[in-house]
Amino acid sequence: MKFIQKTLILILLTTLSVKADQGYNLWLNYQKLTDPVSLKEYTGLLKSIHFDSNNSTQQVAAKELQNAFGILTGKDLPSNRSMESGSVVLLKESALKALQINQQVPDNADGFIIKQVTVQNKQIILISSQSDIGLLYGTFAFIKQLQLQKRLTGLNISESPKIQHRILNHWDNLNRTVERGYAGFSLWNWHTLPGYIDKRYIDYARANASVGINGTVLNNVNANSLILTHEWLLKVKALADAFRPYGIKVYLSARFTSPIEIGKLKTADPLNEDVAQWWKDKANEIYKLIPDFGGFLVKANSEGQPGPQDYGRTHTDGANVLARALAPHQGILMYRAFVYANEIPEDRAKQAYNEFTPLDGKFDKNVMVQVKNGAIDFQPREPFHPLFGALPKTPIMAELQLTQEYLGMSTNLAYLSPLFKECLDSDTYAKGKGSTVAKVIDGSLDGHNISGIAGVANIGNDINWCGHPFAQSNWYAFGKLAWNYSLSSEEIASEWIKMTFNTDASTLQAISQMMLQSRETIVNYMTPLGLHHIMSWSHHYGPGPWIKDKPRADWTSVYYHQADKNGIGFDRTSSGSNATAQYFPEVAKIFNDVNTCPEKYLLWFHHLPWSYKLKSGESLWDGIVKHYYLGVKEVEQMQNTWDSLASKVDGDIHLQVKQLLKVQHEEAILWRNSCVLYFQSISGLPLPKGLSKPEKDLNYYQNLEYKYVPGI
Amino acid sequence: MKFIQKTLILILLTTLSVKADQGYNLWLNYQKLTDPVSLKEYTGLLKSIHFDSNNSTQQVAAKELQNAFGILTGKDLPSNRSMESGSVVLLKESALKALQINQQVPDNADGFIIKQVTVQNKQIILISSQSDIGLLYGTFAFIKQLQLQKRLTGLNISESPKIQHRILNHWDNLNRTVERGYAGFSLWNWHTLPGYIDKRYIDYARANASVGINGTVLNNVNANSLILTHEWLLKVKALADAFRPYGIKVYLSARFTSPIEIGKLKTADPLNEDVAQWWKDKANEIYKLIPDFGGFLVKANSEGQPGPQDYGRTHTDGANVLARALAPHQGILMYRAFVYANEIPEDRAKQAYNEFTPLDGKFDKNVMVQVKNGAIDFQPREPFHPLFGALPKTPIMAELQLTQEYLGMSTNLAYLSPLFKECLDSDTYAKGKGSTVAKVIDGSLDGHNISGIAGVANIGNDINWCGHPFAQSNWYAFGKLAWNYSLSSEEIASEWIKMTFNTDASTLQAISQMMLQSRETIVNYMTPLGLHHIMSWSHHYGPGPWIKDKPRADWTSVYYHQADKNGIGFDRTSSGSNATAQYFPEVAKIFNDVNTCPEKYLLWFHHLPWSYKLKSGESLWDGIVKHYYLGVKEVEQMQNTWDSLASKVDGDIHLQVKQLLKVQHEEAILWRNSCVLYFQSISGLPLPKGLSKPEKDLNYYQNLEYKYVPGI
Repeated sequence: MKFIQKTLILILLTTLSVKADQGYNLWLNYQKLTDPVSLKEYTGLLKSIHFDSNNSTQQVAAKELQNAFGILTGKDLPSNRSMESGSVVLLKESALKALQINQQVPDNADGFIIKQVTVQNKQIILISSQSDIGLLYGTFAFIKQLQLQKRLTGLNISESPKIQHRILNHWDNLNRTVERGYAGFSLWNWHTLPGYIDKRYIDYARANASVGINGTVLNNVNANSLILTHEWLLKVKALADAFRPYGIKVYLSARFTSPIEIGKLKTADPLNEDVAQWWKDKANEIYKLIPDFGGFLVKANSEGQPGPQDYGRTHTDGANVLARALAPHQGILMYRAFVYANEIPEDRAKQAYNEFTPLDGKFDKNVMVQVKNGAIDFQPREPFHPLFGALPKTPIMAELQLTQEYLGMSTNLAYLSPLFKECLDSDTYAKGKGSTVAKVIDGSLDGHNISGIAGVANIGNDINWCGHPFAQSNWYAFGKLAWNYSLSSEEIASEWIKMTFNTDASTLQAISQMMLQSRETIVNYMTPLGLHHIMSWSHHYGPGPWIKDKPRADWTSVYYHQADKNGIGFDRTSSGSNATAQYFPEVAKIFNDVNTCPEKYLLWFHHLPWSYKLKSGESLWDGIVKHYYLGVKEVEQMQNTWDSLASKVDGDIHLQVKQLLKVQHEEAILWRNSCVLYFQSISGLPLPKGLSKPEKDLNYYQNLEYKYVPGI
Repeated sequence: MKFIQKTLILILLTTLSVKADQGYNLWLNYQKLTDPVSLKEYTGLLKSIHFDSNNSTQQVAAKELQNAFGILTGKDLPSNRSMESGSVVLLKESALKALQINQQVPDNADGFIIKQVTVQNKQIILISSQSDIGLLYGTFAFIKQLQLQKRLTGLNISESPKIQHRILNHWDNLNRTVERGYAGFSLWNWHTLPGYIDKRYIDYARANASVGINGTVLNNVNANSLILTHEWLLKVKALADAFRPYGIKVYLSARFTSPIEIGKLKTADPLNEDVAQWWKDKANEIYKLIPDFGGFLVKANSEGQPGPQDYGRTHTDGANVLARALAPHQGILMYRAFVYANEIPEDRAKQAYNEFTPLDGKFDKNVMVQVKNGAIDFQPREPFHPLFGALPKTPIMAELQLTQEYLGMSTNLAYLSPLFKECLDSDTYAKGKGSTVAKVIDGSLDGHNISGIAGVANIGNDINWCGHPFAQSNWYAFGKLAWNYSLSSEEIASEWIKMTFNTDASTLQAISQMMLQSRETIVNYMTPLGLHHIMSWSHHYGPGPWIKDKPRADWTSVYYHQADKNGIGFDRTSSGSNATAQYFPEVAKIFNDVNTCPEKYLLWFHHLPWSYKLKSGESLWDGIVKHYYLGVKEVEQMQNTWDSLASKVDGDIHLQVKQLLKVQHEEAILWRNSCVLYFQSISGLPLPKGLSKPEKDLNYYQNLEYKYVPGI
């Protein structure tokens, strides 16, 4: 016994169930309903499903409902050629009139209604939409009602997505490694494609459709041109065919120099006619294989990727040459604004704005500029990117990161909806108060007719898809917010918990509380009060506030925290880099003034003395240190909460999360001790009273090396 | 509908079951028993389980039986502190006497008996062994009886393994890629170790224990010295702790230059005292963490790996310095004989023999030399390695390859038991007739008291562990043959099919036939009549009989097939490289004489004119071509057989295999056409009558390029 740890015994003794799905089923984790009222209502009211069996999307919708209904209620829901009382009826809007059904269906191809109505004296559940995919969305929304054990009587739901293109970005390499991927290998098994369609491809599409995601960029933005060769396009086509019934369009990251690398041209100059023709021919070839191909995503002139500037051309030139190849086929070109020059920068946070604002209005109509939520890089917390609202003539996509590159990778519990919403709800003041980032994105602020949002996927071939069981919630939340950014993080968490775990009220409350706090906890023990990018070198795992002397200043931590014996923080005010001026005046004023700048962004915008007095009355130094200690404390609270749920959730999952929280606790302590000791070595100040000194010294932490960190 | 292929529709419409395990459960795929006789007998006879609840191995044994019994019968099998009628009793041999049970238990620590006996007027099922792990093996064997619906009355089983160390070799890199791995990423998630014990680690151990595998080398033989640093050893310890209750010992591949790379010594010379001390200290460190650590595996002076020859020392010197570090802890040192010099070789097939035979008797007692089944490299067919029997003073392990490096990777159905047995059953004549390879391996021929066998694992993090559903059978077969090489391939296939699919007789017969034929089919369309190593460059995927002009002659295909306008084959007879002389005279004579050499090895040993007359009466040229065509035909037969089983096996698995067989058929045609066209371009001879010419020309096949083939 002496070699067996306590946890291990738990594992050995609790986890033999062959029925456990180990998280594979995600939030579509149907279980027999426990509430007798719901069971009785559903089996009493619902008798059959009526749909157009000639349409593959309606077929899968029916199959989804039948499968869910069967597991939830233990009863069949047979398909029926005619409508009857008790039918769930999938009907395109175009068919309503013929049946004298007078119902208002949203004026949006993806929108739907779900209504209990009486038609020809038959009481039915009507799911209607302008499109087949809208019927599938409606079906999933109806299934959710059943999972959540909602009443059907008087059911009356009408929904439309606020954003048109709701897209996952997979940073998946062709050798199946995933850049910033922490959930195993890439889902895409290129070697066995196109001949072998893995069941996972279908389940991936199902999961996406169930939350309204309608597009996927299959390959890394650091792209390999091989993906555009005919042989690989056949593989892409196989995936597109598999996803199509679920309304998922396929997109590809295009490497700017593909015309040279696979087209054997001498240049990739976007103004060269042969280059333009090459892209047109390539687009034609793709659309012949994949008639509903979504378009290209391009990362150009950023972090060593080739781009138009290599030929003395602008981003507009670069984007437009691809956009024109796609335009005849209704494809879109997503052009990333995450660029920074290779010369030593003035302030990296300012560069995208500086490069892109002069180009506004010069992009073709099917170009969207894709902007990260913040101006640096997916930090635990960043103020919103100043480009939002600053390109009124250009449709802007937000790029959010679901994979936890900077938030503890696969071992930290981080529910990211609060982070996403912090960005989306931010008011840019671009057209006065209420000009939120969300309204920039959805096109309503500037009257664009295309709109989009991208989420960098956290999906790999781990059995549970996302590595950490709770990381699934970020996939879910991204889909829900892309559909409707007005949902609260609480609502989304609540749904996800009920669908993933169970509908027990105390479980819900406990888990919800953990989730809603989780991101702030990570901010506390990683980068409190506006600190940012002080992670370890290259892989971004673990603390590295001491990182300096790298090829570029903005690849170091000392560049970002600017700590010295007098104080800490990056002065981005008018007395510093003046990055604040990139925001609209109302916002600029708030951020620029240390008295109005929200403390959560304090050191992002201000360099302040260690003795600076925070709103709490304590010094900046004390405040920083207390945040670090608080973060660790909060992880301990999560551990206690989770322990209390041992009997409430699936045993396998409980044990997984219990172990992960323990790892997270160790990592939080690592972060706290490293940062506190390092900043103390700079400030020379004592720890606030009552906080115990880290056991080990700074030297110990600085000498830790992390090898083979995943996701590179 | 027009974009949806037929297969895709099948996928969409048949695979929503959340209960399907997608192959995760392997052969431990318990299902409620369908045979009423068995059900009645089991529930009537079996009432409880009695075991020593203070022992973790007995605990897991009981848990395994309770879990299996519950699913198979739908009834509980509670544990009982006292024996009662109907108890399944786990009892160590040492406890039998006290209870006045007089039963003969095998004189082998891993052996066991399972007997229906009457003790104190109570009828029980007694499982007894000298060891706890023997009780677990006995429990799994008993579960198998239930899965196979065997009668319990009069049950009387006594088993002992013939080979002591039954070890998987994982060629897993620390970045989680797997060399020659075709089933996803490495199982070992080093980043989350040691804190996070994935459920898969336990299920991996369970699966191994269920077939008697008792060791695992965690990392690639092309080793990274990092694994021996303290930080990584803590991760290794976590795995060892997880595996221990299942009797799985952990081993590591040790890089020969570790003393330099992590020990900061200036040399790794095995005769240097500091080096010897470093290995001793390292072994002490390891055993402090892992008291039952198994030992090291070393690949030295082979394919660029460092080794003793770099310091002018011998393999013996290299092996013994590590062996002496392990010896005080009862660890073993496995030293691979897969070596070949970096100079241009005379005949690569001869080198291992030439290097190792002079060293026989010079290895320390805890060294085992690990020899691949054949002298080249895991070909679809090779004659047995001449080293078997040629090192009588040295314990020899056989190294078999479960992963299908040369047999179609993850897309080809290849049941490898016939290949393994072809080697194990070969008669070396080392001590006269009956001196089989198996008897060399098990130590009985030369009276060694340690014995071992290694299987290069085909396991990754794919949900079904092995990529191809049928690849699981090779993990199973390896374990069974390692335990008892006398089992027939038919018996092993039969058990595996029943445990994995179902016990339906017609299903069994059909699948068994497919499996037993499968490897020969691959030989037919890849390398018939003794051809070998004519795969594509580097990754070994697809045909490359035209490969030439590489840095080493023995890295080309033309070196191995030696085809010219007059004939084909590698002359390894006394008139050629004389490799035949490395075998004992009785064997050498058979192989050396074209008239007695089995035709399956013909071109391995003989260079013959295209017109050479085969036993069938047809010319060698016609025979080669017909084999290639036959291979494709046989894949078509497998497809037909499998199609006929659509209603007999799990729908998901059926569809997976159906798709894979289609891919295999295309690959078989690719092989056939490439090889036939290429050899025809050399021989200038027409195809035999009745065989249709390949559609495309040789140039087409030669220009195919395979990018990002997995497993490199």
